[in-house]
Amino acid sequence: MENFSQWFHNILEEAEIIDSRYPIKGMSVWLPNGFKLRKHIIDSLKKILDKDHDEVLFPLLVPEDELAKEGIHVKGFEDEVYWVTHGGQKKLNKKLALRPTSETGMYPMFSLWVRSHIDLPMRFYQVVNTFRYETKHTRPLIRVREITTFKEAHTVHATKKESDEQIKEAIKIYKKFFDILAIPYTISKRPVWDKFPGADYTMAFDTLMSDGKTLQIGTVHNLGQTFAKTFDIAYETAESTYEYVYQTSYGLSDRVIASVIGIHGDEKGLSLPPEIAPNQVTIIPIIFKKGGEEVLAKCVEIKTSLESNNIRVNIDNRDIRPGKKFYEWELNGAPLRIEIGPRDLENNKAIIVRRDTSEKIKMDLSSDYINTIKNLFEDITQNMKSKVWEKLEDSIVATDNLDNIKNLIADEKIVSISWCGDEECGKSIEEITDIDILGTQSSNILIEDSGNKSKDSSNKDDENDSKNKKCIHCEKEGKYTALMAKTY
Amino acid sequence: MENFSQWFHNILEEAEIIDSRYPIKGMSVWLPNGFKLRKHIIDSLKKILDKDHDEVLFPLLVPEDELAKEGIHVKGFEDEVYWVTHGGQKKLNKKLALRPTSETGMYPMFSLWVRSHIDLPMRFYQVVNTFRYETKHTRPLIRVREITTFKEAHTVHATKKESDEQIKEAIKIYKKFFDILAIPYTISKRPVWDKFPGADYTMAFDTLMSDGKTLQIGTVHNLGQTFAKTFDIAYETAESTYEYVYQTSYGLSDRVIASVIGIHGDEKGLSLPPEIAPNQVTIIPIIFKKGGEEVLAKCVEIKTSLESNNIRVNIDNRDIRPGKKFYEWELNGAPLRIEIGPRDLENNKAIIVRRDTSEKIKMDLSSDYINTIKNLFEDITQNMKSKVWEKLEDSIVATDNLDNIKNLIADEKIVSISWCGDEECGKSIEEITDIDILGTQSSNILIEDSGNKSKDSSNKDDENDSKNKKCIHCEKEGKYTALMAKTY
Repeated sequence: MENFSQWFHNILEEAEIIDSRYPIKGMSVWLPNGFKLRKHIIDSLKKILDKDHDEVLFPLLVPEDELAKEGIHVKGFEDEVYWVTHGGQKKLNKKLALRPTSETGMYPMFSLWVRSHIDLPMRFYQVVNTFRYETKHTRPLIRVREITTFKEAHTVHATKKESDEQIKEAIKIYKKFFDILAIPYTISKRPVWDKFPGADYTMAFDTLMSDGKTLQIGTVHNLGQTFAKTFDIAYETAESTYEYVYQTSYGLSDRVIASVIGIHGDEKGLSLPPEIAPNQVTIIPIIFKKGGEEVLAKCVEIKTSLESNNIRVNIDNRDIRPGKKFYEWELNGAPLRIEIGPRDLENNKAIIVRRDTSEKIKMDLSSDYINTIKNLFEDITQNMKSKVWEKLEDSIVATDNLDNIKNLIADEKIVSISWCGDEECGKSIEEITDIDILGTQSSNILIEDSGNKSKDSSNKDDENDSKNKKCIHCEKEGKYTALMAKTY
Repeated sequence: MENFSQWFHNILEEAEIIDSRYPIKGMSVWLPNGFKLRKHIIDSLKKILDKDHDEVLFPLLVPEDELAKEGIHVKGFEDEVYWVTHGGQKKLNKKLALRPTSETGMYPMFSLWVRSHIDLPMRFYQVVNTFRYETKHTRPLIRVREITTFKEAHTVHATKKESDEQIKEAIKIYKKFFDILAIPYTISKRPVWDKFPGADYTMAFDTLMSDGKTLQIGTVHNLGQTFAKTFDIAYETAESTYEYVYQTSYGLSDRVIASVIGIHGDEKGLSLPPEIAPNQVTIIPIIFKKGGEEVLAKCVEIKTSLESNNIRVNIDNRDIRPGKKFYEWELNGAPLRIEIGPRDLENNKAIIVRRDTSEKIKMDLSSDYINTIKNLFEDITQNMKSKVWEKLEDSIVATDNLDNIKNLIADEKIVSISWCGDEECGKSIEEITDIDILGTQSSNILIEDSGNKSKDSSNKDDENDSKNKKCIHCEKEGKYTALMAKTY
């Protein structure tokens, strides 16, 4: 894509996703089309989370003293917290923060809720708006001041082991979710200077946007006992002693929606994976002067039968040229379009057109076409997935020469290096190259991950095994494979 | 109910609806159980609205200058607006309000969206949190500082006539919704001194809580052209002239959930209308030492068959006494409980117990029991509805003696009076009695309303026809029937 930034700006407007003309910088309006897309993405995630998480809803505002309790945490957020200072004409006794994230709002309550080991584990999530006073250049859905779609999960465990297991579980959940969205990702452990403020460690999902920059699309934090000690969250063990709990939190934001739009979209507009497309199938009657009623009746018949199979379908019978309809539904990203004209009707056939490949398929209306369509949904998702995964993998290039990094990044690559893991050395690498270290990859994660990768991922395992290599900078033992990228 | 206030407080805690111990007054946490109830109530409303409204989502914050644009409107809210004044350590150039309602956030955008008569009408809604710095005593779900479940619809029309039609349409929508919830209501036109700030007129739904006080549960405002002129929302007519639009807005809040809980609940706990109950059916296996597996298998079979008919059902097979389970599911308000023991199994029967009447029904498992259950849902809703409507109607008492009002109100009545409609006179009535005038009823609305009323409502029409009566206070012509009540 020539100019991704411009394209992204245009598609949000043309496909009526959001309106960014709201009179506060970094805050936008979800338009009906965009709202539906957002809703289906959220629903798709909820389906996964609801299996063993309870949805809750906490107040937006966090009292200043609660926010300030965890010193490292508040330091990480203090420059970007919005403060409510007045109610009506009156100055409040205590300032109230618009949550930048909800640890400090939730955990005083967790302290009341957690009593005994039999209460554990606890797993909650909420989908809420959070606020960051961003001083950098804002960009709709990517760098915003009101995150409208913050999904945050918070879990509480009796042991460190269980909390580590939960981190793996959360990674599995996010992988499953991103696979549904056909979004490719790297998983890495953020360097210590880039972990979530207050966390023991942070695992992160990054994806690659069309301009070669990576976008953080999900993070998973092991909070250890830091917040438990600060907020006094303790449980009575089976032996009647008291222990602090271990906690994790993991979150996703509007950026997931940005990546669905940005990664699959093309010069025709949006292209949406069937699971989350507001209209999965659009039926377009090709009506000439005569035979119109019969064609429309057939369209309604197909619609009814698709709907009874829980497929989201609409008929576009507006009185405009079919070409204009094709154009609009391609722009809106509907995965399948069905065209039916009088001659098709005579042959009891219809044409299905795939949005992802533009392929036209003859559909026999006397056959089990519901099944055909469901299979097509599956094919489309797989095709979209393998295309973008291939692109991501091709973009990851290993180097053992520090001087190469800048050029590779300029070439829109993600650079894989061998690194000793030392903080000072890492920061020095970032400084010299002016490029961020995304994080380190363990072969463990790569193995789990290989299911999503194309055939050549087995070669990659080799490259990522940095144990035998020297650190790219200090030349000590290379303990980790680290990824470097230009980031959003 | 002896002490409704205490009962309401307890039920929110015991049924795990919300936790009001959050460290900010007037702001509470939705617990998993409560969140599910809230969700089903919202979904039930959305099903109605989605037919001809588009769901959108606007930013929370409203710039000070936009909020202040409409003079009457801002005056109505200025004492209860929360203000964001700082971002990080920095003072903001422009204060930002936490929306108390969204007219002033939305309408600058409407001004951009409305172009031509062919764009109209427009109908939007959103479900969001709004904020009011309440100085009165707060009470969970009823008088709160964060309204977590504010459903607000905003419509735009070309003509006054269409906007008046939309008011009727909105009233129909809310009636339909409250009927699903089996919540009884009076509909009245608020007196001018109590209408929504900036509206031409406000129609309101009030219900009667168990302590004899009325609770405003929904309002419908005709905004006329007031905001259109302030925010410059105009359209090009077919004749290429420009005209300001006519607008309406209508809203519901957490109070709807409070009324569902408060009006149907009893000494056993919640009692929920099937449509919105998180668990519509709870199956409880009655297991003794032997035959347990067969009983459980039958429970699973019933569950599967109910689920495939979109009935929300769970099996409570915890290892505790059945009596404790009955107690808990009655507390949680599940409309139907199915009990199956080994002897029932032998006879291929089960026992269904209704939450609303405690009636026990033998269910033949070889019959079409899905249908039996669906019919029971219908019966339960009707029974809950007629019970509470009867109570509401019985509580409405007419008087033509000003001195009687206080006593009737003390007796937990809603008082119907004849009133001239004059503002000064009305305020004087309120002052003398220290009781609020809810609003005026037109026979028109009563007729539309009669479908929901029990048999004796025809008598009421007579009482409400005040045209031939004198005003209770000034003795001029009684133009309206007005309702007076002790309000929340």
